Amino acid sequence: MSLLLAMTGWHVEDWRARFAALLPDMPVVILGEPFDRRSVHYVASWKHPEGSLSGLPNLAAVFSLGAGVDHLFADTRLPEVPIARVVDPDLTTRMSEYIVLHCLRYLRQQPRYDRQQREKLWDDDRHQPAARSVRVGIMGLGELGQDAARKLQVMGFDVAGWSRSPKAVEGLATFAGSDGMIDFLARTDILVSLLPLTPDTRGLIDAKLLAGLAQGGRLGGPFLINAGRGGLQVEADILAALEAGTLMGATLDVFETEPLPPESPLWSHPAVTVTPHNAAMSEPEAVATLIAAQIRRLEAGEALEHVVDPARGY
Amino acid sequence: MSLLLAMTGWHVEDWRARFAALLPDMPVVILGEPFDRRSVHYVASWKHPEGSLSGLPNLAAVFSLGAGVDHLFADTRLPEVPIARVVDPDLTTRMSEYIVLHCLRYLRQQPRYDRQQREKLWDDDRHQPAARSVRVGIMGLGELGQDAARKLQVMGFDVAGWSRSPKAVEGLATFAGSDGMIDFLARTDILVSLLPLTPDTRGLIDAKLLAGLAQGGRLGGPFLINAGRGGLQVEADILAALEAGTLMGATLDVFETEPLPPESPLWSHPAVTVTPHNAAMSEPEAVATLIAAQIRRLEAGEALEHVVDPARGY
Ligand SMILES: NC(=O)c1ccc[n+]([C@@H]2O[C@H](COP(=O)([O-])OP(=O)(O)OC[C@H]3O[C@@H](n4cnc5c(N)ncnc54)[C@H](OP(=O)(O)O)[C@@H]3O)[C@@H](O)[C@H]2O)c1
Ligand SMILES: NC(=O)c1ccc[n+]([C@@H]2O[C@H](COP(=O)([O-])OP(=O)(O)OC[C@H]3O[C@@H](n4cnc5c(N)ncnc54)[C@H](OP(=O)(O)O)[C@@H]3O)[C@@H](O)[C@H]2O)c1
Repeated sequence: MSLLLAMTGWHVEDWRARFAALLPDMPVVILGEPFDRRSVHYVASWKHPEGSLSGLPNLAAVFSLGAGVDHLFADTRLPEVPIARVVDPDLTTRMSEYIVLHCLRYLRQQPRYDRQQREKLWDDDRHQPAARSVRVGIMGLGELGQDAARKLQVMGFDVAGWSRSPKAVEGLATFAGSDGMIDFLARTDILVSLLPLTPDTRGLIDAKLLAGLAQGGRLGGPFLINAGRGGLQVEADILAALEAGTLMGATLDVFETEPLPPESPLWSHPAVTVTPHNAAMSEPEAVATLIAAQIRRLEAGEALEHVVDPARGY
Repeated sequence: MSLLLAMTGWHVEDWRARFAALLPDMPVVILGEPFDRRSVHYVASWKHPEGSLSGLPNLAAVFSLGAGVDHLFADTRLPEVPIARVVDPDLTTRMSEYIVLHCLRYLRQQPRYDRQQREKLWDDDRHQPAARSVRVGIMGLGELGQDAARKLQVMGFDVAGWSRSPKAVEGLATFAGSDGMIDFLARTDILVSLLPLTPDTRGLIDAKLLAGLAQGGRLGGPFLINAGRGGLQVEADILAALEAGTLMGATLDVFETEPLPPESPLWSHPAVTVTPHNAAMSEPEAVATLIAAQIRRLEAGEALEHVVDPARGY
């Protein structure tokens, strides 16, 4: 019985060493090396090559090495076994650091003060809107969205959230589905995207959505923060809204193409902040530990945790 | 019986209108205009001219129009009447916005990512320290320091505080007085100053203090955030520590001279962020309302709140 590591772009030998240390009785094999396909009971994947997981007759579960599973469902030949993702409290904390940082950065007009510093300008108009007068809207009220919402509320923001199914979260204004979308956007000064990428959410952040955001709020117009997935956003529409002045600024951690190509106008747009898809990275050690615990759970006949639904795509 | 407004640099007529609306039975007089000195029972001051409050025989109380009272104690001829400051929950919230923003900005290396964006560089080394591995030390555990400490803890930081008198604050490592200073500094990666300016604290942030900060923490060296008063810091020592590499960066909202003179090297130092003394500004309406309530309290024979101690200077 073995664990197959199937990853692209990561140091597979480091991962082999981690799992070998955590699961001393479980052989760890690697895609590309020769191995007995019948021995593979578990797969840990990050962007495995299309079709590479088919023909594993004894496969019992596939583990995503990250919080997102869009990279798994991108494989049209993904075997029909339970698929689990990583839910890592440490990753959640890091994502909230990022979201609170960038909401405060817009609230407190830090890009403007950076500019004024370069011009050696002591601002005369020093009053600022209070957090309570700024409405943050979070798309996605899962592990990440709910933690970010709570911390933004602690900072004083007026927070609402939007999800697929209706949700009651204490102290939070909530909206759901396409029915709730228009009202949700209309009360949003800073839109935070923490959605998974699925067939339903692909391209969601487009001209139509951006046009629905609140105009005339205390920040002088709406802002966007996307830390979900690049496939959620239509970058041409974001740039057009910035040009039209209906969007005041955007902070993007994720992109249609990653790494962001040098020719992308996002790099140099004065109202755009980009970060290299590192809003929330797990410690590899923590991820390996969580997956090893899941394997031990299965071996002990217990139920798998954090199983995703292929029909929903998350 | 009248209220005297004694301020420099502010629009006194706006303040007269505010107090007139809030205290319809109380004449409001202004320094510089003719008025009966015997009529003055109350003074609301912001940086009043030296000696201008002496010779008011019926003076009952002086109100600072801000949270700080160093501007009052700068007057060697300040009358010996009770002095009260403004404690405004809204101002506290705003200060915590500023402190959390700038701690997260250092934690998440935003100045570095700003630079990388200008260079169109997609970072390869994208791992970041977690908030729990970064030790924030707050000097001043008063209204502002305690709120900032709590919110930094919510964000995950490892927070300690330092005050004059020993304090027990749940979940917070606390240090007090000069005895506690060395240990406090030695465990501090980000030093936050929220102290009042007094004879004891003037020039406190000097070469000696900076040399005591933790070297070798997860941020690669210590950072400074001063949002108390400019008189707390020795700017030449901060610049020297930055040059020596024993201080990694400084965010300053307050300065030895304000507005910050154009010739100050702080404006253009790559490791310094400056803001124009607006970390936390009160809404004038809120300040006037709080002072009017204090006057009504005195008129009703009740005790004044938020009285400061001239011996301590805060
Ligand atoms: N940038 C980074 O560094 C980084 C790091 C980690 C994760 N991420 C991204 O963040 C995403 C969210 O993570 P999570 O752990 O919070 O996921 P999660 O717990 O599965 O939550 C997903 C949320 O999105 C909502 N949602 C899904 N499809 C929707 C739709 N069509 N319309 C409206 N709402 C919809 C869900 O609604 P219900 O509540 O109704 O199910 C749920 O609230 C991940 O999928 C990943 O792509 C990014
Ligand atoms: N930048 C801005 O926009 C802005 C806005 C508002 C206020 N401020 C500044 O922030 C300051 C603090 O405000 P606050 O409302 O928090 O004041 P506060 O409630 O009076 O608290 C002052 C704190 O400083 C401590 N302290 C005073 N002298 C000390 C000394 N010699 N050694 C060690 N600790 C000492 C006090 O210790 P104990 O607890 O032992 O008394 C107390 O914890 C104000 O005085 C003002 O200068 C700046």
